[in-house]
Amino acid sequence: MSDETRLEDEDVMLADAPAEEARPDDRIDDERMDEENTLKPEFVRAVEDALEEGDEQAVYDLVEPLHPADIADLFELVTKDDRAPLAAAITDLMSGDVIAELNDYVREDMMEALPAEAVAQIAEQLDTDDAVQLIEDLDEEDQQAVLAELDAEDRIAIQSALAYPEETAGRLMSREFVAVPEAMTVGDLIDFLRDGRDLPAEFLEVFVVDERHHPVGTCQLSWILRTPRSIPLGDVMKRDQTLIPAMLDQEEVALMFQKYALISAAVVDDSGRLVGQMTVDDVVHIISEEAGEDALLMSGAGEGDINEPIREAYSSRVRWLVANLGTALVASLIIAAFGAAIEKLVALAVLMPIVASIGGNAGTQTMAVTVRAIATNQLTRSNTRRILWREMRVALLNGVTVALLVGVATALIFTPQLGAVIALAMTINVVIAGSAGVLVPVAFDRLDQDPAVASSVFVTMITDSMGFFAFLGLAVASGIVA
Amino acid sequence: MSDETRLEDEDVMLADAPAEEARPDDRIDDERMDEENTLKPEFVRAVEDALEEGDEQAVYDLVEPLHPADIADLFELVTKDDRAPLAAAITDLMSGDVIAELNDYVREDMMEALPAEAVAQIAEQLDTDDAVQLIEDLDEEDQQAVLAELDAEDRIAIQSALAYPEETAGRLMSREFVAVPEAMTVGDLIDFLRDGRDLPAEFLEVFVVDERHHPVGTCQLSWILRTPRSIPLGDVMKRDQTLIPAMLDQEEVALMFQKYALISAAVVDDSGRLVGQMTVDDVVHIISEEAGEDALLMSGAGEGDINEPIREAYSSRVRWLVANLGTALVASLIIAAFGAAIEKLVALAVLMPIVASIGGNAGTQTMAVTVRAIATNQLTRSNTRRILWREMRVALLNGVTVALLVGVATALIFTPQLGAVIALAMTINVVIAGSAGVLVPVAFDRLDQDPAVASSVFVTMITDSMGFFAFLGLAVASGIVA
Repeated sequence: MSDETRLEDEDVMLADAPAEEARPDDRIDDERMDEENTLKPEFVRAVEDALEEGDEQAVYDLVEPLHPADIADLFELVTKDDRAPLAAAITDLMSGDVIAELNDYVREDMMEALPAEAVAQIAEQLDTDDAVQLIEDLDEEDQQAVLAELDAEDRIAIQSALAYPEETAGRLMSREFVAVPEAMTVGDLIDFLRDGRDLPAEFLEVFVVDERHHPVGTCQLSWILRTPRSIPLGDVMKRDQTLIPAMLDQEEVALMFQKYALISAAVVDDSGRLVGQMTVDDVVHIISEEAGEDALLMSGAGEGDINEPIREAYSSRVRWLVANLGTALVASLIIAAFGAAIEKLVALAVLMPIVASIGGNAGTQTMAVTVRAIATNQLTRSNTRRILWREMRVALLNGVTVALLVGVATALIFTPQLGAVIALAMTINVVIAGSAGVLVPVAFDRLDQDPAVASSVFVTMITDSMGFFAFLGLAVASGIVA
Repeated sequence: MSDETRLEDEDVMLADAPAEEARPDDRIDDERMDEENTLKPEFVRAVEDALEEGDEQAVYDLVEPLHPADIADLFELVTKDDRAPLAAAITDLMSGDVIAELNDYVREDMMEALPAEAVAQIAEQLDTDDAVQLIEDLDEEDQQAVLAELDAEDRIAIQSALAYPEETAGRLMSREFVAVPEAMTVGDLIDFLRDGRDLPAEFLEVFVVDERHHPVGTCQLSWILRTPRSIPLGDVMKRDQTLIPAMLDQEEVALMFQKYALISAAVVDDSGRLVGQMTVDDVVHIISEEAGEDALLMSGAGEGDINEPIREAYSSRVRWLVANLGTALVASLIIAAFGAAIEKLVALAVLMPIVASIGGNAGTQTMAVTVRAIATNQLTRSNTRRILWREMRVALLNGVTVALLVGVATALIFTPQLGAVIALAMTINVVIAGSAGVLVPVAFDRLDQDPAVASSVFVTMITDSMGFFAFLGLAVASGIVA
């Protein structure tokens, strides 16, 4: 231990402070930000006005105090035409952090407009993982041009990342980390870190590896700081650690970080060698993306990013509208088959959308629950049957409730017979909807397809067709259309 | 600096290892887990069988090697009736980590079944934030009973957390953190940490505070480890830090962690005093929950957790089905108004669901995109008009595409006139759907309502009614129903 003065306890506050009364309007104190911590429209307009007047100094003065993440937001908030002049006005504020925080589409757009040397210049100041993100967007030719501009070390690191498939740990991991042998003492480690030149700027844990560079344990930095210098790392480290295979898909990586509450983790290659690390701040974006995309996928909105070019948004959405035309066609054919009945009793045409619509709604509810449970690994082969049974019971309760309401109303307005027919049809359709809402996404999942993507079309087709068929079929079978 | 031996460089590996070829089947090596890192059905069944036979030792032997997070999963995967016997068989494996990882409903269920002393016993081994989660589920009376069992220090900490509203930073933060004065040197800090008794088990940064206990800066542990002992913290720390107001809602906290790529952050009360810290591993669950819940809310599935009791699932879902009945009723009234036209031309009844269904689908797509953009703070007052205009252009492209397809098909099967009518109606309805898909969620957001919750009902009502009205109205107006 050192002979320097030991601190008195009162110099140090290990707080366990009681909660004082706080007001809800206690927010971040910045006149540029609104209450949701986004840039105020007045501020964005001031920047746009300065850009229009060509007053680069005014633009710079406005943007300079912003956090890099807010500068990135600013690029997304101004119109497309203002982005290049804005970048030109604030070149030396365009740090790696700004680039890393930019929306994918906006970044791609800006990078494509820049010459290869300029992209390389930006890539050089980024961490490898951020540089990879920048370069993977470019087409093959531009990629090669940018790589040629980089120095050898950066180029090799980026090429080795690009050798892994997109959205795998190998592509996303950082190649800068600290790995030391088990025999090293805490004191040696601290001296080494103080001395170290090629260290990453920030790191959250130190990996302990054997002579083959295989991870054998991990040390949180707080453990190192609390341990006397003479203790070897082998006595401080935790041997039991979560290793991430480099080929693991980012969705599984995100689930592992969540499940095991990881802050950072070692990435190992096929032979078990430590090749990189992932930290939770990179994973946070993936978690949010993966959790949020299911709503977009289920609605058939593709990527669903508001910065996506219109042509891409059109092409991903129209595909699902056309697929839905197919399901609507099936429904129409069923209705056409009952054309004579509808001609005789126009009330059938008035009521039939209710049966289909409520069925569709019930199916979507169950489907959303199922897709989410699959995505979070809560629904597995162990409990599928139990969840199906659970959803069918919920569906039966829902079906009987809405059937009673609609049945009674129909009986009063039209005839009791028609009320009975619609009530029975609705109960049947909602129970079918509940089953389809579980079985369709589970089937897609077992076939290794994303359950969020195509389930909607099938569930809607089933509930629409069955709704019309059950209602019109029961109406004819019961003889009320005589 | 210390006089201990400096390490040779080859003893330390600062890896920049190239990617080796890796196989996609390179996964976590555990015969209990399947390829998605969830417990295999065979393992779950083995535990259930052992429980049925009452063989507690066999149960213990099976569960003992599992990670706490997997033990928590196991509780969720076995049937409700098996949970109490399982807990009884593995009492000494029921660590705080297991409890913290349990699904809310499963935990609530288990806690309600336990006597207050047992809950208090579990709460005592948890960190304050996890203990709060355990206790906030209980009803008032049980809460008091458990609090009475706790020792004074834990009780005060938990009560101070419970004084903050649910889902705020004050409720969720950890009350254990390290705060030190600016004048302290790196060496003093390391000695203090080595000596410290009341330190948190793990921490990711050291907060520097002034004499009023207001944060003035923050030090990543890696900076401390790399800095010579004699340097004061004031020269190492970053002065610019993101402070989280204790009253901030968890959704905003999650967005701040994402936006500024935070690992941990200081929580301050109304007067600016440091009262706690939040670390990203706690926020990860919130990010995933908040991002994932929009799909559930939009479908009207409420919490949408597969562990939610059936009665609660029924009551949250049936509410939206009944609300949807209202929208279906409006559609039915519109159809009824055109009853005479349908009687004359039954093709109208056959085709009308196509117009409504495609409109509904297009509206849901735009709504999903808008809700996500609002949730991620991408859509703000600065760009609402631009996004509306963007979505209307996408809608026009989509509308014209599907209108052409359906119009031509209708012209061939029925009459060219009917083809023209349905094409025009579909174009109108898809454009209306696109506008409603933006305007409805934006309106809810401006009224401080969650845009994901009620938008669906309104968007569907608009697209259904307008679909039927445009199609049937144009058919009558064009004189084809003569």
